[in-house]
Amino acid sequence: MSLPGEFELIRRYFAPLAGPGSLKLTDDAAVVDLQPGRSLVATTDTVIAGVHFLADDPPDLIARKALRVNLSDLASMGAEPLGYLLVTALPAGIDENWVAQFSRGLAQDQAEFSISLLGGDTAFTPGPLSLTITALGQVERGKALLRSGAKPGDRVYLSGTIGDSAFGLKLAKGEPLTLSPSEKSSLLDRYRLPQPRLGLGRRLIGVASAAMDVSDGFAADLGHICQASRVGALVEAAKMPVSPALRSVLEVGEASLVEVATGGDDYELLFTAPAAVELLLGRIATELALPLTAVGEIRREPGVIVLDQNGRAVELGPGGYRHF
Amino acid sequence: MSLPGEFELIRRYFAPLAGPGSLKLTDDAAVVDLQPGRSLVATTDTVIAGVHFLADDPPDLIARKALRVNLSDLASMGAEPLGYLLVTALPAGIDENWVAQFSRGLAQDQAEFSISLLGGDTAFTPGPLSLTITALGQVERGKALLRSGAKPGDRVYLSGTIGDSAFGLKLAKGEPLTLSPSEKSSLLDRYRLPQPRLGLGRRLIGVASAAMDVSDGFAADLGHICQASRVGALVEAAKMPVSPALRSVLEVGEASLVEVATGGDDYELLFTAPAAVELLLGRIATELALPLTAVGEIRREPGVIVLDQNGRAVELGPGGYRHF
Repeated sequence: MSLPGEFELIRRYFAPLAGPGSLKLTDDAAVVDLQPGRSLVATTDTVIAGVHFLADDPPDLIARKALRVNLSDLASMGAEPLGYLLVTALPAGIDENWVAQFSRGLAQDQAEFSISLLGGDTAFTPGPLSLTITALGQVERGKALLRSGAKPGDRVYLSGTIGDSAFGLKLAKGEPLTLSPSEKSSLLDRYRLPQPRLGLGRRLIGVASAAMDVSDGFAADLGHICQASRVGALVEAAKMPVSPALRSVLEVGEASLVEVATGGDDYELLFTAPAAVELLLGRIATELALPLTAVGEIRREPGVIVLDQNGRAVELGPGGYRHF
Repeated sequence: MSLPGEFELIRRYFAPLAGPGSLKLTDDAAVVDLQPGRSLVATTDTVIAGVHFLADDPPDLIARKALRVNLSDLASMGAEPLGYLLVTALPAGIDENWVAQFSRGLAQDQAEFSISLLGGDTAFTPGPLSLTITALGQVERGKALLRSGAKPGDRVYLSGTIGDSAFGLKLAKGEPLTLSPSEKSSLLDRYRLPQPRLGLGRRLIGVASAAMDVSDGFAADLGHICQASRVGALVEAAKMPVSPALRSVLEVGEASLVEVATGGDDYELLFTAPAAVELLLGRIATELALPLTAVGEIRREPGVIVLDQNGRAVELGPGGYRHF
């Protein structure tokens, strides 16, 4: 294997990423102080080559997406990030240049999100490359945004636009779409490098009644909120926020609203809020330069119903809403 | 694959393990409160079938060892555990019975260590089974036991006995050792189910000057403490605490003191403390019914030297002390 040993890899590529609390990665664990009155927020996600990404994807983007998916979970709770732990399982065939690019990607996102590496583990595996990141954050005690607070009458909101990532994945797989090169790259970027909505999450504390990030797909994830909150939702498909690129794909019939509603991997925030905060949400959207779109309403009746432009319920198929 | 889907696996086997702060595993992240005046302690370790354990090892023991190795890292910092996050990457060929046994092992150790599952991720992998656990704990602010506090004149201590696990591994691999069946099973048990010294770690706060758990091997790990503390150490091999079973293996010449000093996977605490706390350490040992043995002394001169019974430096070989 054309790789130095574990300790040397850590010294060369991971120790430079380590920040306060990491004890320079030379102790048995990280030690981190929370601000007074804050609760710890912790989440972990794993990605595996051939399952969650392609083995020959650019190493820096693999690293950054893995990190961002975890930061998105912190965002959806309203937390601010404290740092992260990284487990890297490296297969034979990975060379030092790969690790160098990988760590540069992490360095780039550490700067972007003002976080640093707290600790981790580096192992060699006979299987595919896999990464496991644990993101740690803090949130005002008792104020975390949960899935369980949606109330009948609340509005359902989405940040940004949805569906781009699912069609970016299609492009990555080589499926043809009638789009300009710049539109194509905008969809691909959305798939490869999601934007965790950390600023929005922080602003939604005390404003949103429930929140989560859209990873399984808008309709399925709205189902998760409804189930946790013991309510239902009525959504108007035409109100779903889509990007200009995806709008043109819809217009030529190469995409359907069902695909937009069920696409997944968007990492936008899906949240509910009482009608009374509509103006406040408008101000937050302006401040963050991030559209916040009301797409429907929470109702007492269970289930998620998505209506088309003719007021008919859209059949979402098996991916649309999963009971569990 | 004879397994239900991710959500169903979580519902059947992991949700019952979830405790306070886990939000029943249905939110995007766990939310945990620390006690006032405490810092967060976080550590993560991964184990991979074929690398760190054998694929056909008993699932409950795989689970418990993976958890305990992480708890041992908390112990070495003097932290008390808050809970853990679990990432399970399951290959084809794992059946539901495997997952059931695996989760029973976790339940058993959750009861033993008064902790619960806070969150995690379940994925299917084309590679070998792997587990990544992130253990979270808390420690009095500014009081965590670090590797960097050893001072010349401090004594070097070990809890329990060392070397058992390395010889338990030999037995697991089928190597013959002249031992009774009960001695064999005592060594095997030490390899399969290490005992995180959480109670001792807590008691060493304000008492030990440096600490870590023995995972790479006593001599190598003492090297880590010396390097972090910018000191050296002089150890008497004959003072290393060994179990009656391992003592008899030594006596028939089937083990050497070098193997005891470099064996690894012991998960005992290795710590340094000033001579003034000797009596206090004796009381702690009695209270915890856990031997604490002084094996050497910290010196100003760098490097770890292990002396044999004739006062000659033992050649530890490449595994004995690693520079990095």
